[in-house]
Amino acid sequence: MHRGLFIGRFQPLHLGHITTIKFALKSVEQLTIVVGSADKSHEARNPFTAGERIEMIKDSLDNDGEIDIRKILIIPVPDLGVHALWTKQIELLTPRFQAVFSNDPLTNILFKERGVRLIEPHLSHRKLLSATEIRSRIVRGKTWEKLVTPQTVKVIQDVDGIRRIKTLFTRMADTDTYRVSS
Amino acid sequence: MHRGLFIGRFQPLHLGHITTIKFALKSVEQLTIVVGSADKSHEARNPFTAGERIEMIKDSLDNDGEIDIRKILIIPVPDLGVHALWTKQIELLTPRFQAVFSNDPLTNILFKERGVRLIEPHLSHRKLLSATEIRSRIVRGKTWEKLVTPQTVKVIQDVDGIRRIKTLFTRMADTDTYRVSS
Amino acid sequence: MHRGLFIGRFQPLHLGHITTIKFALKSVEQLTIVVGSADKSHEARNPFTAGERIEMIKDSLDNDGEIDIRKILIIPVPDLGVHALWTKQIELLTPRFQAVFSNDPLTNILFKERGVRLIEPHLSHRKLLSATEIRSRIVRGKTWEKLVTPQTVKVIQDVDGIRRIKTLFTRMADTDTYRVSS
Amino acid sequence: MHRGLFIGRFQPLHLGHITTIKFALKSVEQLTIVVGSADKSHEARNPFTAGERIEMIKDSLDNDGEIDIRKILIIPVPDLGVHALWTKQIELLTPRFQAVFSNDPLTNILFKERGVRLIEPHLSHRKLLSATEIRSRIVRGKTWEKLVTPQTVKVIQDVDGIRRIKTLFTRMADTDTYRVSS
Amino acid sequence: MHRGLFIGRFQPLHLGHITTIKFALKSVEQLTIVVGSADKSHEARNPFTAGERIEMIKDSLDNDGEIDIRKILIIPVPDLGVHALWTKQIELLTPRFQAVFSNDPLTNILFKERGVRLIEPHLSHRKLLSATEIRSRIVRGKTWEKLVTPQTVKVIQDVDGIRRIKTLFTRMADTDTYRVSS
Amino acid sequence: MHRGLFIGRFQPLHLGHITTIKFALKSVEQLTIVVGSADKSHEARNPFTAGERIEMIKDSLDNDGEIDIRKILIIPVPDLGVHALWTKQIELLTPRFQAVFSNDPLTNILFKERGVRLIEPHLSHRKLLSATEIRSRIVRGKTWEKLVTPQTVKVIQDVDGIRRIKTLFTRMADTDTYRVSS
Repeated sequence: MHRGLFIGRFQPLHLGHITTIKFALKSVEQLTIVVGSADKSHEARNPFTAGERIEMIKDSLDNDGEIDIRKILIIPVPDLGVHALWTKQIELLTPRFQAVFSNDPLTNILFKERGVRLIEPHLSHRKLLSATEIRSRIVRGKTWEKLVTPQTVKVIQDVDGIRRIKTLFTRMADTDTYRVSS
Repeated sequence: MHRGLFIGRFQPLHLGHITTIKFALKSVEQLTIVVGSADKSHEARNPFTAGERIEMIKDSLDNDGEIDIRKILIIPVPDLGVHALWTKQIELLTPRFQAVFSNDPLTNILFKERGVRLIEPHLSHRKLLSATEIRSRIVRGKTWEKLVTPQTVKVIQDVDGIRRIKTLFTRMADTDTYRVSS
Repeated sequence: MHRGLFIGRFQPLHLGHITTIKFALKSVEQLTIVVGSADKSHEARNPFTAGERIEMIKDSLDNDGEIDIRKILIIPVPDLGVHALWTKQIELLTPRFQAVFSNDPLTNILFKERGVRLIEPHLSHRKLLSATEIRSRIVRGKTWEKLVTPQTVKVIQDVDGIRRIKTLFTRMADTDTYRVSS
Repeated sequence: MHRGLFIGRFQPLHLGHITTIKFALKSVEQLTIVVGSADKSHEARNPFTAGERIEMIKDSLDNDGEIDIRKILIIPVPDLGVHALWTKQIELLTPRFQAVFSNDPLTNILFKERGVRLIEPHLSHRKLLSATEIRSRIVRGKTWEKLVTPQTVKVIQDVDGIRRIKTLFTRMADTDTYRVSS
Repeated sequence: MHRGLFIGRFQPLHLGHITTIKFALKSVEQLTIVVGSADKSHEARNPFTAGERIEMIKDSLDNDGEIDIRKILIIPVPDLGVHALWTKQIELLTPRFQAVFSNDPLTNILFKERGVRLIEPHLSHRKLLSATEIRSRIVRGKTWEKLVTPQTVKVIQDVDGIRRIKTLFTRMADTDTYRVSS
Repeated sequence: MHRGLFIGRFQPLHLGHITTIKFALKSVEQLTIVVGSADKSHEARNPFTAGERIEMIKDSLDNDGEIDIRKILIIPVPDLGVHALWTKQIELLTPRFQAVFSNDPLTNILFKERGVRLIEPHLSHRKLLSATEIRSRIVRGKTWEKLVTPQTVKVIQDVDGIRRIKTLFTRMADTDTYRVSS
């Protein structure tokens, strides 16, 4: 196959993502990495901007000895609200592709209804290599740096990300001061 | 009265809706059925597209011996986000009406603030004849087909709706793969 | 074929539309009439709300001796801004269809790229039976009533539509008072 | 009457607006000044942000010996796209009012359809006291300062507004470089 | 400092807000009160429209002997969805400011990332003087009037706000009737 | 400097863009190519989707002997409507940058107001190497292939782009059939 699609939110990028990228590159010549929820940031589940996440991915792959960065495109795709238009939105923002690498059941249903080929990558250490786990460790002050690349650590430090994640997490849900989110 | 409005989400259409439509047709010459949240689909609470729901309604009423389909309009209305504009949005998308049939307290407050006449239809078998109950039965593999019309069963089967509902329901809330919803 | 789609803006409905509806009903069992730009009204090119246009269509077809209203659905579809998502939006808001009746080149390209069958209805008296011509005649005080159905005349009178069209038309483009449009 | 509404775009505020405000204050106890198209700026017709326009109004009225600023509210209202929802939007964003001061025919039609009392203020020196004329004079390097208040001149100078207006005006319509507007 | 910003939702305005406004006016010459979530109303957490909230604020400050209303601007700002654009949105809708008065951690992080000076006002009686507490007391039928100004009580009574809050609160979360919110 | 930004619409990519990319790569280590108006396609001025344009750029740069593709990111950015938020939107969707390469006066004003360094690349053969000129030649049936890369020619042929451009151009502006655009 010429081109595949790998969809994630990368909040933040971790070693599980790197493994999937290497797995995908075995069966496609070109890989488009879709940075989902690109319009989201500064939320407990989505602390980083799309630009910060793209920087994590680009810097990490540039410095990984096994990945040929020339085969990679990194494309941010915002949420649409309307689920059934979302796969179409991805098609509009990316070059033509022949397969999708994804483990999310809804993504899979939506692409299957459009007749796209789906490949479910094997997830190893699923509980540990998870962005939810990493954000949770950051909040609780536990070690997390070994679950991500050194370049991801650097971007998080550059943007004062530890404090941002902790603030977003501990921000009480019921104070009545104005809150940005809808 | 010339024209009435009946507002629902129809996820899916069930026999309680049919009863209300017959009740309404006793007091109005024409009835506009508003398919609410028309922009929503592929969500646990909103599995079906507006088109699929309109198909359920049209095919069911066409085959109901007691309903005169010539008196019916079926109009999809998307959510607006801004509650206070929503009744105005309904007025823009539907022919002029003189009464609203609704049991939802917020709908009733919003229309009352605009001075519209409200009729609260009697709901029989409220717990059983409920779309929430039907979706829940589908997820748990219990019988549900007798709570809806044969035409609704057919549309759900045609679009592989059982699997869609189960996937949407069991999709774990905390995996960190990209998720479409905002 | 089971179901066809006829797409128009109906600003206002005129006799050319009625002819096309009759033409379409010869080859499909059910016809969905899509009222496009449903979010638009009170503009020079789009004076009427979707509800007003639906009322024109429903009342006219109800009183046309040759049309079986039981075969008709009338569905408002708002503009999306993003052209390439628009055909998908129509699919989400309408029951499944097998053909589209349309003379608009862009509509035709967009549906052809999705592999939908297109039928271009013959347009007779194209210059006269045109909503642009009718709005222009209303502005200039010329006769227009014979180009539309009596039911359309009635809806336009009921909503004080003559004055609305004239105001929207003559409203000077360069006054600097606040103007609603973006 | 207790409270009136005066709607304008104020691109920029000029002496004609000041006259209308004084006229309105003769018949109402409180006046809400609506700064329309509040989401627009950096366009040829809308060079200034809502904040900059509010600053012009607040500073000018503070320094006008005849106006009692305690009777004034200044409220920005963004465009909605959907004309028919716009009057409702204004009602949601402002305190209850009993009359609208406006010379725009569309504004007047929309409020009349809602049953609101309209007062059309007399416009003197309409050609000269017009924001279009002022922006045009700025582009052509002619005098304009006497058509506005000294406070408006100051805000325009503070934000480098002369250069902004000239750039927005002379920016060629047909270059193919990326352009922000939709 | 010339101008400060005080951001709140004011659902409803209470005596804690009044204290903060007086505190802020000691260190700035002008104060812009931002009414956040201005697009929200008729929700359990956001029962009042922006216009109703502005009326509470304007009428209360007009009748407070210690506050000079001439130093005050009251500006509604809608939610944007995209957190990272929200501070920019506030800057576009308000006159230039030199400091922000806020106790919300996310607001503070977002403004700090833009280099804006933040002042955290002391909150006394934090549990009692809270809009959440006031709405909760209204629902439970307990006294609440002494926690707000007499003008706020009047606006709430004028718009039948007690019934609105109770309805929004008791509206069952799981009925399957159509519900406006997305 | 580490990273620069080059902003264009690329409708389609042409040799002038390639020259600018090479010029920019002399002074920055990494270059982010922003594909503007990413939400637009199937319009006379914006015939191609963002995905098609990204494919033109990626394939062309991959096959240009002088460009190191490892230094390049290609990021689609949708229009926002609100000009003053657009530069902020670009910052959210791209990695941190130190300079912008642009010849558009509005882009330059907006970035200058944010304090970003601007470099205006020299444009040679400005009239000929212009996407407007290329689209115009395609419509008139004149040669255009030598103004673009062979890879751009291939993408345009693959998506039946010649016919798409001609249709979008010749589509009469005043027919009254439904039209997708707002």
